[in-house]
Amino acid sequence: MIRAVDIIQKKRDGEELTSDEIKWLIDGYVAGTVPDYQMSAFAMAIYFKGMTTREISDLTMAMVATGEQIDLSAIAGIKVDKHSTGGVGDKVTLILVPLVASFGVPVAKMSGRGLGHTGGTLDKLESIKGYEIERSQESFIKQVQDIGLSVIGQSEQLVKADKLLYALRDVTATVDTIPLIASSVMSKKIAAGADAILLDVTVGEGAFMKNIADARLLAQTMVDLGKAVGRKTVAVITDMSQPLGTSIGNRLEILEALEILQGKGREDITEFICELAQIMLGLADVEKTVPEIREQLHNGAALAKFEEMVAAQGGDVNDLYRESAAAFIAEIRAEKDGYLAELPAMEFGLFAMRLGAGRAVKTDDLDFETGIVFEKKVGEAVKTGELLAKIYANEKISDELVTEFKKNVKISDEQKKVREIIEVIA
Amino acid sequence: MIRAVDIIQKKRDGEELTSDEIKWLIDGYVAGTVPDYQMSAFAMAIYFKGMTTREISDLTMAMVATGEQIDLSAIAGIKVDKHSTGGVGDKVTLILVPLVASFGVPVAKMSGRGLGHTGGTLDKLESIKGYEIERSQESFIKQVQDIGLSVIGQSEQLVKADKLLYALRDVTATVDTIPLIASSVMSKKIAAGADAILLDVTVGEGAFMKNIADARLLAQTMVDLGKAVGRKTVAVITDMSQPLGTSIGNRLEILEALEILQGKGREDITEFICELAQIMLGLADVEKTVPEIREQLHNGAALAKFEEMVAAQGGDVNDLYRESAAAFIAEIRAEKDGYLAELPAMEFGLFAMRLGAGRAVKTDDLDFETGIVFEKKVGEAVKTGELLAKIYANEKISDELVTEFKKNVKISDEQKKVREIIEVIA
Repeated sequence: MIRAVDIIQKKRDGEELTSDEIKWLIDGYVAGTVPDYQMSAFAMAIYFKGMTTREISDLTMAMVATGEQIDLSAIAGIKVDKHSTGGVGDKVTLILVPLVASFGVPVAKMSGRGLGHTGGTLDKLESIKGYEIERSQESFIKQVQDIGLSVIGQSEQLVKADKLLYALRDVTATVDTIPLIASSVMSKKIAAGADAILLDVTVGEGAFMKNIADARLLAQTMVDLGKAVGRKTVAVITDMSQPLGTSIGNRLEILEALEILQGKGREDITEFICELAQIMLGLADVEKTVPEIREQLHNGAALAKFEEMVAAQGGDVNDLYRESAAAFIAEIRAEKDGYLAELPAMEFGLFAMRLGAGRAVKTDDLDFETGIVFEKKVGEAVKTGELLAKIYANEKISDELVTEFKKNVKISDEQKKVREIIEVIA
Repeated sequence: MIRAVDIIQKKRDGEELTSDEIKWLIDGYVAGTVPDYQMSAFAMAIYFKGMTTREISDLTMAMVATGEQIDLSAIAGIKVDKHSTGGVGDKVTLILVPLVASFGVPVAKMSGRGLGHTGGTLDKLESIKGYEIERSQESFIKQVQDIGLSVIGQSEQLVKADKLLYALRDVTATVDTIPLIASSVMSKKIAAGADAILLDVTVGEGAFMKNIADARLLAQTMVDLGKAVGRKTVAVITDMSQPLGTSIGNRLEILEALEILQGKGREDITEFICELAQIMLGLADVEKTVPEIREQLHNGAALAKFEEMVAAQGGDVNDLYRESAAAFIAEIRAEKDGYLAELPAMEFGLFAMRLGAGRAVKTDDLDFETGIVFEKKVGEAVKTGELLAKIYANEKISDELVTEFKKNVKISDEQKKVREIIEVIA
């Protein structure tokens, strides 16, 4: 007879679990016969003792089997999905999806919400007036067949084990362990049905993975997992030491995404997204150069795709370009000459959260209009009095808040280089 | 604001918790605001990261505060308590308590039940016809005032946190970790109100502690804990590689205890118990030599105390000496010449459990009559065909059962020595 306590003890003692033991535990957890208190002890044992690639693969597939699996076979071509392990100001999906779709590669993507210092693509899309994130599977697939792309909310029926386990890990200090992060991400990606997956593993102060070694291990683990179940998988390790691009906040990030889609965005994030698009297209066997990809921004093809998607999902395209309606704007200016040395992503993510742009707990309402726009990023020269950033708020911006913002802006004499894509793991 | 998840994470990361954090967690657990699933993750973090002496002491006192604390001050003299960390065939309390009481040292003791391969003093006493283990605190104290001793079941109101936590640890593979064992044992002993405590820390195959280093660490931890809260505390580390004495099983152990109380027991266990009695008397400032203590067995004083206690608690003294009523008895004989080299305590404990002498789960009923009586113990010479042991059962004893019993009896050419008391830690 299999007993949960024996499985926990086996993992606690550093032994490798069998496929049957893992499946029994996950099935029992979803069925309610393995209670939360055994799962949390098990998760903590995994935190300390890890899992082999085989165990993680078994765990992932056991999790996939606890929910619906999306069948995208009705859509012609190689369907490519993309996932980021979370970031601050990460609007990459908003640009990448229409950009890739503009080359005829179908993207049927499910996204999630943000929590804590990290934002979520779903929240950003919802800040577009009328945009519907809940769609039936039929209309989701039909939209991709018709116009080549759709981004909706993740089905409630997908990977039930992950929903339960993630909520449990969140309150038992068992979130940041690679076997559980990898199986959580990959179970959802596998269940979501794409043929190929691009994983953006963020690293740095504002990411789950604080150092490159951990990020590499997580990336490799997920790539191996994807390949083991027949999905073409590539991971990129990308910098999350500072916020991505110039804006944090839902409406503000939509506006930045539109700029980039028009070829008018910052050079660095534009180049970064084109490189990601090149990898994503490659996964669908479409080989393009970065200049060819950039051309789709300049000629309006990517933007047209984005507008097409927004319209198809009920969004008001006329409202798209509206400025933030935030009632208060504060300007932050440099207090000395030098180079911008640090813009810690975590701190600014939490700062934006407190402005209403993010959620402290899952049930918090968002204020779509608030956030931050940076005029300068790490590595750039600044002069005393020069504009560094703007704070957008719907409550009066106190001097304390401004002081706190400034505290996190580090200016130094040395110029620091940031590499957006640190490594590609295929 | 204190959050359970932060306390779990702090322990997970190997940091020392504050007294407030520990108290907040334990109080919350008993109040139901800290759920089982956070407590089990916390217990697993302790398993891997341990606790400092200060943390264990805080944990113990936080646990003590969650229940009733027995006030024994109405009883004159130094009250001494005794606790064993669990064993197979461990009837020591049955003999030690009346022996010590026969010297005028009051013993007001609460005992527990057995589970798995280990037996419990309470079960053994209940196998005496009429013996009442539930008593009000008033009548418990009055009996000790009147006749100098009482052994009853542990109050349900004692250390509520331990009841919850122990049940949780049992199903989450977090039983065998020294901070949680030490705080569990010592919280109950401290709440039970004695002035001095003798701890019997068993070591070996049939005990919680499998090796001497772990046993020493547990013993020292508990001695330090006791002293820190003003209780004179001594620990002995004793052998539990083979069952203690000759019998396993409730009625059979009562009979063995009676033999020892009459000075007719095996020499080794008699000597062992007299040495423990010497330490326990010493804790009450009564200095006696082992021969003086032995004399209380030979002159009938200890036996009289035992019978007095049984009678005072409603037990039928005439039924005390009745042989086991087991319907089936099988004899196990030596299959070769040599020395008895191994009688693994765990295996024989589980064997007796399957005969009905112990519980697989807490709700199991016991068969008081069944068990095992060993005629030979480790280190003794045996000849082919000589009687080694008898199995007492109430179901027919199959050949398979006999074969299994014999499999665990190891005879070799070498004579092995067993030290009953391995070490004394004061």
